[in-house]
Amino acid sequence: MNGKAKIIDGKALSVELREKIRLQCTEFEKKNARKVGLAVILAGEDEASAVYVKNKIKACEESNIKSFAYYLPKTVSQNQIIELIDALNNDENVDGILVQLPLPKHLDEKLTLGNVTYKKDVDGFHCMNAGNLFLENECLAACTPSGIIELIKSTGEEIYGKNAVVIGRSNIVGKPVAMLLLQENATVTICHSKTADLKSITKTADILVVAIGKKEFVTGDMVKSGAIVIDVGMNRFEGKLYGDCNFEQIQLIASYITPVPGGVGPMTITSLMKNTLKAALEAHSGRA
Amino acid sequence: MNGKAKIIDGKALSVELREKIRLQCTEFEKKNARKVGLAVILAGEDEASAVYVKNKIKACEESNIKSFAYYLPKTVSQNQIIELIDALNNDENVDGILVQLPLPKHLDEKLTLGNVTYKKDVDGFHCMNAGNLFLENECLAACTPSGIIELIKSTGEEIYGKNAVVIGRSNIVGKPVAMLLLQENATVTICHSKTADLKSITKTADILVVAIGKKEFVTGDMVKSGAIVIDVGMNRFEGKLYGDCNFEQIQLIASYITPVPGGVGPMTITSLMKNTLKAALEAHSGRA
Repeated sequence: MNGKAKIIDGKALSVELREKIRLQCTEFEKKNARKVGLAVILAGEDEASAVYVKNKIKACEESNIKSFAYYLPKTVSQNQIIELIDALNNDENVDGILVQLPLPKHLDEKLTLGNVTYKKDVDGFHCMNAGNLFLENECLAACTPSGIIELIKSTGEEIYGKNAVVIGRSNIVGKPVAMLLLQENATVTICHSKTADLKSITKTADILVVAIGKKEFVTGDMVKSGAIVIDVGMNRFEGKLYGDCNFEQIQLIASYITPVPGGVGPMTITSLMKNTLKAALEAHSGRA
Repeated sequence: MNGKAKIIDGKALSVELREKIRLQCTEFEKKNARKVGLAVILAGEDEASAVYVKNKIKACEESNIKSFAYYLPKTVSQNQIIELIDALNNDENVDGILVQLPLPKHLDEKLTLGNVTYKKDVDGFHCMNAGNLFLENECLAACTPSGIIELIKSTGEEIYGKNAVVIGRSNIVGKPVAMLLLQENATVTICHSKTADLKSITKTADILVVAIGKKEFVTGDMVKSGAIVIDVGMNRFEGKLYGDCNFEQIQLIASYITPVPGGVGPMTITSLMKNTLKAALEAHSGRA
C-alpha cells in the first residue's frame, strides 16, 4: 500500500444521513400531527456534558425532531430523576429519552438508566435492547456501534468474510460493535487489556475498531496494510482532542481511517436521531 | 506435545457437581417446606427429544429437584401450549420451565419460548437473560456455554489472557460461550461458515470450542499443540454419535479434549439443574 489512506468523513456522512432522517421525521409529523420527540436530561454542570447535550439538541433541530431539554441541578435526588423519567416514559409526545452521562456521583447510573423504558431507550443501553441486539432481533441498537457500521459501509468495502478486530470490550461500544460486525458476517476478535501479544492480532485485521480510551495507543506497526481503521477514542490532552490511534502513522498504512474529531462522534449522534425516529414509528405502529 | 491429550470427563464432573446441587436443593427444601421444581414440556413424539427429556428428569431425581412432566400430543395447539406455560409461570411450586426443542412444525418456537417468564427461563434463552449475560449482570445463563466454562476450569488451566476461538455463532452456544470466555478475560475470536482461512485462526487457539454440527469437521492439523479442545457436536451417523472434532487426530495434539458422548452433553444438563436451583433461590429471596 503506497500513499495515504482515505479519510472516512463522519461529518459529511452525518449530514447526508440526517437529511434522510429529516425527511422521514417530516413525513411522520404530517401523518401523526406531532413531531418526533426526544427528551434530553442533563444533571449537573459538567462542561463536556453540556457541549454534548448542546450538539444533540442541535442535531434534533436539523432532523426536525422536537427536543425536550431537562437541566437538573447537580443536587437532584435519585427519586426526583426517576420520577422525571417515569413521567417521560408515559408522555406520548416523547419517543426517546436520553440521560447524559456521567451522572453526579450520588446518583446510581444503573438504577437511573434502568428506569427508562426499553421502548424509549434510544441509547440502546437497556438489557432488552442489548439482549435483542445479541439475539439479532429488532431493537434500538447502541448508537456508537451502529454509527461505526455505517462508517465502514460508506467505504463501499465488503464486511462479509473479513477479519474484524475490536480493541475494547465495553457494553456500549466494544461488545455491541463486535455483535454487529458478526451479523455482517465478519470473523470477529475481541481484544482488551488482558490480551497477550495484541500486535500479532491487530496485524490480521482487515477492519480494526479501536475503543480503549488511550491517546494514540495504536501505532502504525500494529496495522495491516490496507486495513479499514475506525478510531472511537476521544482523549482530551492539553486542550486538544486525540483518538486512540496514531493518525499520522496509520494513514500511511491503512486504506481508510476515521479522523478524531469528525469520524465516529458525529455518527453517534446521527444514530441517536435514527433511533428516536425508529422508536416513534414503533410507538405509532403499536397505537394504530 | 508428545503423547495423548487428557480427556475431560464431563460425566464424572457432572456427578460431582450434581452432588453439590443436591445438597443445596435439600437445604432449600428444609428451609422452604417444598422442593425446588422444574416443569418439562415435551410436545410430540420425537424419539431423540424423548431421550433428552428422560435424561433431564433423571437428573432432577439425582439432584432432589421435583420434576413436573407435561407430555403434549403432537397436535397441541399454539394456544394450549401458551396457556400451559402461563399457568406454570404463575405456579409457585415451579421454579424453572423447560420447553424441549424442536417443537412440532405448526408451533412457533420464538412465540412459545417468549412466553416463558425470564425468571423461570432455566435454558437462558429469554432476551432478558441473553441481555444480562451480554452486559455481565446476574442472569440465568445458557446451559451449554456455562457447562463449557466449567469443563475448561476443571482442567486447572487459566482462561485469563488466553486466545479462545469459538467456531459457530448460534444464540444458544457460540455467541454466549464467546461472552463467557470474554468475561473470564480470554481474547475471543468468533468464527463461522463465512470465515476465510479458518485453519490459520484455529491454529492460534489455546482454547478451541467447536459448535457447528458437522461430523469430525475439525481435524488435527487445525489444532494448536497443547490446546484445550471442547467439542459441542452431537452428530448421529449410522446409529453412532460423532462430535464436530476428529477425536483420534486431535488427541495426539491437544493437551485436553472432551469426548462425544460424555463431554459437553452431561454438563449441559447439570447447568440446567444449577439454573433451576438458582431460579428457586431467587424466587424465594424475592418473597422473603
